[in-house]
Formats: sequence, C-alpha cells, structure tokens
Amino acid sequence: MKTARTQILIASVLICALALVATAAHAADPLPSWNDGKAKQSIVDFVAKVTKDGSPDFVPPADRIATFDNDGTLWSEQPVPVQLYFVLDRVKALAPQHPEWNTKEPFASILKGDAKSALAGGDRALLELVMATHAGLTTDEFAQIVKQWITTAKHPRTGRLFTDMTYQPMLELLAYLRANGFKTFIISGGGIEFMRPWTERVYGIPPEQVIGSSIKTQFEMQNGKPVLMRLPAIDFVDDKTGKPVGINKFIGRRPILAFGNSDGDQQMLEWTAAGNGARFMGLVHHTDAKREWAYDRKSSIGKLDKALDEATAKGWTVVSMKDDWKIIFPQ
Amino acid sequence: MKTARTQILIASVLICALALVATAAHAADPLPSWNDGKAKQSIVDFVAKVTKDGSPDFVPPADRIATFDNDGTLWSEQPVPVQLYFVLDRVKALAPQHPEWNTKEPFASILKGDAKSALAGGDRALLELVMATHAGLTTDEFAQIVKQWITTAKHPRTGRLFTDMTYQPMLELLAYLRANGFKTFIISGGGIEFMRPWTERVYGIPPEQVIGSSIKTQFEMQNGKPVLMRLPAIDFVDDKTGKPVGINKFIGRRPILAFGNSDGDQQMLEWTAAGNGARFMGLVHHTDAKREWAYDRKSSIGKLDKALDEATAKGWTVVSMKDDWKIIFPQ
Repeated sequence: MKTARTQILIASVLICALALVATAAHAADPLPSWNDGKAKQSIVDFVAKVTKDGSPDFVPPADRIATFDNDGTLWSEQPVPVQLYFVLDRVKALAPQHPEWNTKEPFASILKGDAKSALAGGDRALLELVMATHAGLTTDEFAQIVKQWITTAKHPRTGRLFTDMTYQPMLELLAYLRANGFKTFIISGGGIEFMRPWTERVYGIPPEQVIGSSIKTQFEMQNGKPVLMRLPAIDFVDDKTGKPVGINKFIGRRPILAFGNSDGDQQMLEWTAAGNGARFMGLVHHTDAKREWAYDRKSSIGKLDKALDEATAKGWTVVSMKDDWKIIFPQ
Repeated sequence: MKTARTQILIASVLICALALVATAAHAADPLPSWNDGKAKQSIVDFVAKVTKDGSPDFVPPADRIATFDNDGTLWSEQPVPVQLYFVLDRVKALAPQHPEWNTKEPFASILKGDAKSALAGGDRALLELVMATHAGLTTDEFAQIVKQWITTAKHPRTGRLFTDMTYQPMLELLAYLRANGFKTFIISGGGIEFMRPWTERVYGIPPEQVIGSSIKTQFEMQNGKPVLMRLPAIDFVDDKTGKPVGINKFIGRRPILAFGNSDGDQQMLEWTAAGNGARFMGLVHHTDAKREWAYDRKSSIGKLDKALDEATAKGWTVVSMKDDWKIIFPQ
C-alpha cells in the first residue's frame, strides 16, 4: 500500500510540475529584451485589449495592421542610412565602366574616398548617385546584387553585418505582434527594392508587406524574354506625407499600430491615430550614445523634433533605447 | 451471443460507413462547377504538383502567388465594365452641383441618357468622366460611396446585382487555391479604390491583395484631422505592360499562376510564364452567348486576340465558358 501511495504521490508531484512548466511557458515574457516600464506596459496592454474577444476594443485579425519605419526604427541609421553604403560600394564597383566619373562630381569625390564632399551637393548629388547605381538594370539583376551585398557588407564603425545591427527588442515586438494575429508591414523612406530581398529572412516580413520609395520600371522584351528595366526616374517617395499615401496605396487599410523614430514618420503616426477605435503610436528615441547613438532634434539623419513634441502632447509611447531596452542588437 | 455478434456487426457497418463518408468528403470535388475536361484537369494537376512535398515542382507556400484579372475574368464586363455604370450613376448624382454639365460634353449626353454619344469622345472623354466622379473627395468618402453603390446597383440586362455576376467556377478556383496555400491577388485595369471596398466580401481577397489603376492622393489636414484627398491626376495604369510593373511594385514576387481573359492580360501571363519552375497561365474565353456573352478577337471591350494566339502556341490553358463551366453565376 505504501508503495502505491508513494507512486501516486510521485505522479501527483510530476503532474503539478508539468502544469507549472506549462503555465510558466504560457506566461513567458514575449518581450524579454525590454525592461519593465511604461513603454513595454503600453505595448502589452494595447495588444491585450485589441485581441481579447468581447473586449470593447477588440479588433478582428484582418484589421490588425501594424506598420514600422525601417531606418532608425528596426535597424541603425547612423552615421548615414545603410543604403548609402550600398550606393558608395556600387559606385566603386561600376567605376571601371565609367571612366568619366574620375573627374565628374559627385562620383569623383566618392572614388577618392571622400563621401562627405560628394554629399555636399545635397539632394541633387544624392539623386544622381542613386540613379547611377540603382537604374539601368533589370529588377532581377538588382535584387541579386542587393542579396549578395547585404550578406557581406559591414558597418564601418562596429564591424558588424548591417543585418546584425537590427534592434533585438524590435525583432521581439514584430514576432509578438504576429503571434497575436497582426500583419506587420515596413513603411520606409528607403528603396523598396533595396529592402525586399532580405526583409523576410531578417524581420520575417515578406516582400509584399514592404513599402518604400521607388524608381520607375518598364516592361521590355530582351531576346524574347520579358524583363522589368529599372529607369532613372523617381516613381514614389515614401517619406513624411508620402507615408500615409503609401499605406493607403499599398495596403488599403489604416494601421492600428505604427512605430517610427523621426519627423519622417510623423504623418504615418497621425494617420494611424486618426482612425476609430484603439490605436498605438510609438517612437524609438535614440538616447543611448554608449550602445548605439544619441540624437534627436538637431540630427541631420533621423531628425526627431516635431514628432517628439506631438508624441509628448498626445501621450504616444516614446521608447528610450537607453532606459527601455536591455540589449540593442541581437547577441 | 447472437445479440452481441449483431451489435458488433452493426458497429462495424457504422464504422465502415463513417470511413466512407470521410473518404468521400476528402475526395469531394473542389471545383464542382467545372466540367471534367482538359482545362479543369490542367488546374488540378498543377496544384497537385506544386503542393506535393518532395515533388520536383514543389513550391513553398510563401511563393504560391496567384494573380487574377477582374473584369471578364472574375465577373462580367459586358456590354461595358461595371465601373462605367458607377461613373454614369455618379454623374447623375453629382449633376445638381454642376449645372454647367447640362451643356458640357461628355456630361450632357450622359444626363440625356445617351452614354454612347458621351463615350464617342474616346479615352479623353472617359478620363474626364472618371476624374469628375472619382476625384475631389477623401479616400474614406469615396470608399463609403462605392460600398453603398455596390450593394444596390444592378446590371441593366440581367437585373442582377453586379456582385452576383461573378463567375461561380472562378470563385471555386480562388477558394481551392487558398485551401492549397496560395495567396490570391487581383491585378486589374480597373480602379484600385473601386474594388477594395467589396473584394474581401465577394472574392475573399483582402484590400492589400488588390492591385489596380489609381489616381494620385495627397495628405492634408482638414479641421485638424488628417485625410487623403483624391486628386484629378493619373497615378498608375495597371493594364497591359503595366500589369507586370504593378505585380513587381505591389507584390515583389513573380506569380506562379495567373488568369486573365484579354490582350490586356498578355504581359502578366508572359511575366508569369518567364519565371523558373512550374507555371500556370490561364485565359477565360467568352464563348457562351446564351448564358453570358460570346466575344474575343473583334470586341472593343475585353478584346482577346494576340493573347489567344500566344496561349495556343504555348499551350496555356484556355477555358471555354460554354464547354468548361456547368454554371456561370452563383445560384
């Protein structure tokens, strides 16, 4: 009898232990890289109320649209956005086919290693560089070049792959939202075809959920095979007031959650806030000079000024990288 | 004993009957409105080979992109595309605010009930009508007007709601593809914002998977509230060579299956065919003057000429509405 009782006891203990493990797993923190605090709590509270059946704030899964800026929101954008390093590398790679670049600005400065002088020409110089490096080839060829570049190119300061300079807390947030039935989108001022070749692997966001700036393409037959040629002409600028336009054009639904980090995201956040029902507007505030960069109102890259004022006035969530994030990059 | 044996026998028969029902349900025809024949077989064979794990033609679910034209492929487009009836109704509704339309073409003819004369002005007249009826209001206002119109407007010949003039066999095909892990998209020459308010309800296709022609929109503040104003300027024409451009722009992946019905879909089918691996290109051929309409090479609406030649030459699937479909419209 005693043996039987002991067995029952052991079995009971085991069952309780399993139940505890299951409960712990169920309650496991979905945002382990976020410090406990107002920012994290506001995210968890929002997700809870829009996903709880019968809640007055319940949103059906199909309408759980979440949009994220990329540069400075999902990965680092300092000292210059990643795509600019791609441009510089492409200028160098293409230079042998363009002997005229040795004396022609902004190319000449770049080939001398002086990117700063090259960019002194402002938007016009930048546009010229983008067109020279992003147009004149097919969409398939361009995707292939981006794919190769992104797997090897490294940040000049950290020596890390650019794709390893994504923000671990934001990767967790993307996964957490998807686990709760959200469809996650990127709404970036960066090039749509510069992002699509790798966003699925890095962020879990498929190409059809990536929206960005674009140049025009044209359908052509090359040796009996159809191709899309990339033309040196702007098609769409997905920044500032362009972000709500892009959201409406590509998604056709208004987000219920949006995250940005700069004044370029202000209109996206306003557009999100103006919908009916529960809404979440978030800003990543770069406050961590030690682990990443610290910049806001006076930065030429990722300037955060008016949007920060609006966030404060309207009670949007402002995430301090220094205080709210345990780690910055994936380990 | 006999009773027990009888019970066992009855139980066995019941189990067998249940197993048979289950087998029948499993093997239930997913395309019941399609007659057995080459067209139906080509669809079923294609889906089987791209979804069978270990098959040399296997395609991962994420890459199972299927694109469908709308007018003439998913619903009727005769005697004129549905959106034109919307334009005519909008001209009449807006006329009181535009007394000048009583003497100004193409509006004057429409208000006299003479659409034919109104459209004699060609593309320019049509463009003028579209801009007058589709621009000058916000995206939210426009969506609301479309939603109301589509729930009541009826086809002048059949007296049916336009949404009841979708093709039952194609609705089955869309559902069959989705049940096999495909993501279904609309790629239409029609207006993107004319389709999005109802495609989810009617086709099971959400707004973010609807691609069409568009006019420009602009972000504005109205009484402190952000809106997107629809401007009288063409943004994108999603027809002919524009279809591959639109597919690349909005989806960023090449379809493995595409369905159209006219020369306007030829480049979409060519673009689909030019990808690697198994591909399916289909055309709906309007051959049924009795149950729908019969038209192809000489029709001004939905002309099917060059694409039919290419389909024949390349062995694409041509669906004869008369021979391949048991019924045309939902019953």
